[in-house]
Amino acid sequence: MTVATYTWREVDRMLAEGDVKGRLTKADLPTPALIVDLDALEANAQKMIAYVHGTGRAIRPHAKTHKCPEIARYLIASGAVGACAAKLSEAWALAEGGVTGLLVTTAVVGARKIESAIDLARLRPETIFCVDSAQNAGDLNDAAAAAKLTVNVNIDLFVGNRTGIFPGDPAVALAEAIGKLPHLRLAGLQAYAGHASHTVGFDKRRQVSLDAMTPAADTRRALEAKGIACPLLTGGSTGTYNIDTAIDGLNELQPGSFLFMDVDYNRIGSQSGDEFYGDFRNSLFVLTTVVSKPKKEQPVVDAGLKSFSTDKPWPPRWRGGDGLIYNFAGDEHGRLMQPAVPVEVGDRLEFVIPHCDPTVNLYDRLYVLRGDQVEAVWRVAGRGKAQ
Amino acid sequence: MTVATYTWREVDRMLAEGDVKGRLTKADLPTPALIVDLDALEANAQKMIAYVHGTGRAIRPHAKTHKCPEIARYLIASGAVGACAAKLSEAWALAEGGVTGLLVTTAVVGARKIESAIDLARLRPETIFCVDSAQNAGDLNDAAAAAKLTVNVNIDLFVGNRTGIFPGDPAVALAEAIGKLPHLRLAGLQAYAGHASHTVGFDKRRQVSLDAMTPAADTRRALEAKGIACPLLTGGSTGTYNIDTAIDGLNELQPGSFLFMDVDYNRIGSQSGDEFYGDFRNSLFVLTTVVSKPKKEQPVVDAGLKSFSTDKPWPPRWRGGDGLIYNFAGDEHGRLMQPAVPVEVGDRLEFVIPHCDPTVNLYDRLYVLRGDQVEAVWRVAGRGKAQ
Repeated sequence: MTVATYTWREVDRMLAEGDVKGRLTKADLPTPALIVDLDALEANAQKMIAYVHGTGRAIRPHAKTHKCPEIARYLIASGAVGACAAKLSEAWALAEGGVTGLLVTTAVVGARKIESAIDLARLRPETIFCVDSAQNAGDLNDAAAAAKLTVNVNIDLFVGNRTGIFPGDPAVALAEAIGKLPHLRLAGLQAYAGHASHTVGFDKRRQVSLDAMTPAADTRRALEAKGIACPLLTGGSTGTYNIDTAIDGLNELQPGSFLFMDVDYNRIGSQSGDEFYGDFRNSLFVLTTVVSKPKKEQPVVDAGLKSFSTDKPWPPRWRGGDGLIYNFAGDEHGRLMQPAVPVEVGDRLEFVIPHCDPTVNLYDRLYVLRGDQVEAVWRVAGRGKAQ
Repeated sequence: MTVATYTWREVDRMLAEGDVKGRLTKADLPTPALIVDLDALEANAQKMIAYVHGTGRAIRPHAKTHKCPEIARYLIASGAVGACAAKLSEAWALAEGGVTGLLVTTAVVGARKIESAIDLARLRPETIFCVDSAQNAGDLNDAAAAAKLTVNVNIDLFVGNRTGIFPGDPAVALAEAIGKLPHLRLAGLQAYAGHASHTVGFDKRRQVSLDAMTPAADTRRALEAKGIACPLLTGGSTGTYNIDTAIDGLNELQPGSFLFMDVDYNRIGSQSGDEFYGDFRNSLFVLTTVVSKPKKEQPVVDAGLKSFSTDKPWPPRWRGGDGLIYNFAGDEHGRLMQPAVPVEVGDRLEFVIPHCDPTVNLYDRLYVLRGDQVEAVWRVAGRGKAQ
């Protein structure tokens, strides 16, 4: 045990500098702390990559889940073609962390952001940007022309309920317009169906995803029938990885949550019929400390609305089983209602997070564990990078 | 207009360095951006401080709302006695930003955190920490003794539904125990009734708050009847500022949200009977950009679950009126359902946030505006400091 060896200041400095391997254990971490079970994370990554490669598809995992260059680089070293970024500022955080093969999945709108996108294309020429309107494509082309660059673009298709242009004729017309813009190169199509990924029940999810994605695959074929090269159709999620990889024409998957999993994904049901979706292991937890016990039946931990995502109806789930039920108790605290196991002030308890992406976005650091040993501290470089 | 004058890199550098006054306007800011209407913020601060002082009470506003040393220092310069911090790491962020008169409102539990608390007490001897058990008081006393310091403590009372020790006999017994610990000095009592602050309807809210706070005032009198000095009873909120300041014995208020306000507080109803609680002005907004328009009736802005709090059932509210209804559309986006006003890609729209504290916690910077001019960029130094 290293616990007694260091003062707080020494631990704090080690954590800030990342110089921790073999020196610190989980007991040294200040709570609330976002911790990663590295064995589980690696198992999830290897399983997903092997599965996708087994179907003859490429994988470009979405980094909006982890926002962490170390993880993106590990995935690329394990066979991924690159990393997706939700926004331009997130892409920059990844690029500056050495990540290649970036796909920015939201259209870049506004003169200043387009200027920044061109800078990124200069640094990482393989980067793909998304466009969903002729106006935006024209703006991007003009900026690329001024910089004497050619920029790769995907057409973002509206196959879910969020952004994009309708598949079919509108998308084909946009592809034709892009073909006339000398500083854009059509990389392909993006089709993300967020409503499919969390549909509960495998058969229903399969149907929702196929209904959403088939028009995207049809659009790719329509482009090729017109002689318009469309090398890429990228989409899919942790919930649909074993559905979308069977779609003829989809050749790249962009899942993210499989690395960490969360309470929300655990409830969508597996292909085998299990209610609990356990295709991938829970690898991400918030480590908390019991800081007050006003009543025997209501101990309080030090993690609340600012330490867990709150966009889903499910609360954090105790890692230890069914004996503790967490209830939010304001910004900074959570109540453990009627605990079925003994809980004392000072106890440290771990919880599965409700929704991984917005939870990671609350933290500056991921503490990476092998068992109880702190293996590394990774900076969440993309935290807050929603621009 | 300064918009056309600078490149993105120049703007980005100015924003990072805070060297913006007179050089940038709102149109220069990368979205999503957290913006503050400084006129409204100042009006809120002056109104609250004048009101509380008018009742003969002190005010120590809670910095968990803004997490920003500049704001805490402004409030102190305007008459506040200091600033509350929810957690020790937040208190450190304030102390390092030059803030004095700190009160840490959650008990500090665990050897390492107590060590850090002692360091803070050395730097800022006037700091008050909260305790709610004899064990924790003893631990803090031992660490203070080792450091040859005397540390100020409040007893945290369980008057809401969160942390603390029960008022009355249990609290009196703890005060007596503290009296025997030579390195602790009893500063007083803390009584925060979070359930009262958001009770809808003034009369009901008044009753809930009085029911919660009266036992705290009684405890202060019980201590004094035993000859135990109890200089401070601190509590109250933006929802109960004009209720708790009438409680005999409560001599310090610790509200936070009055500075910014939010959708959630706007709905609790005012003393005059208005459904809309408008005692303080909305001063905090998220500036967004319309980035996609897949359908005329469903334009999409670039701010979603990672840019707004999601712990309340109410969505962000358009600053411009009733013509736009925001719906969350995932981590990075929001849909504007059936807009009653024209909305085009590239438009910039501002939204009142649902809940101010966890929203501020998502951002690294507050952009401070006078009208459309960027007056300053303040770092949210306590962002993510939940430890």
